[in-house]
Amino acid sequence: MTHPVQGLDDVVHQRTRLGILAVLAEGSRAQFGFLQESLGLTDGNLSRHLQTLEEAGYVRIEKGYEGRRPRTWIRITKDGRRALATEIDLLKQLVQRIESNHSAPADERQT
Amino acid sequence: MTHPVQGLDDVVHQRTRLGILAVLAEGSRAQFGFLQESLGLTDGNLSRHLQTLEEAGYVRIEKGYEGRRPRTWIRITKDGRRALATEIDLLKQLVQRIESNHSAPADERQT
Repeated sequence: MTHPVQGLDDVVHQRTRLGILAVLAEGSRAQFGFLQESLGLTDGNLSRHLQTLEEAGYVRIEKGYEGRRPRTWIRITKDGRRALATEIDLLKQLVQRIESNHSAPADERQT
Repeated sequence: MTHPVQGLDDVVHQRTRLGILAVLAEGSRAQFGFLQESLGLTDGNLSRHLQTLEEAGYVRIEKGYEGRRPRTWIRITKDGRRALATEIDLLKQLVQRIESNHSAPADERQT
């Protein structure tokens, strides 16, 4: 039997990136500053993780203007939503497994 | 409002270490080979993550013999169980938040 953690994708599972995808999944796109504030991240830290997510095809970064002010929006892609859904599914399996195993008598288990 | 991912502890959240703690939490101690097989890990990979967990005080590593064969057992500590419980609690909050937000109309959110 495969343990649920074996299916986790580090690109999505990593704490900060999981937060970014979770926040983005709540709407269709969000501003850089909104993500930063929602997750308590520095500029550099958010940029670095967005790059990883963009390279994986999980987010798209859009630069534009709002009036004369430059803006950066980040949008979750269809692949990003799918990856997040897989992560959530595996986390639920993991939680369920841990919570149902509290009464298991397994002790001094061997290979 | 703090996002649940902000409370996640990287020592516990990292995929492999989360798996190790989850497997250990199912009993009182497990053999090195059992952990390796349960999680599909190489010797080196498991050793490296066990060291991180030991340094954080979340596992204890015990060396001994079973007959004449050397054995390594790994035991989760009380702090390790507590850290895993916190992780699981935050993951449940995260899952709940993602699943309840699918209908939120937030679009083009700003800071």
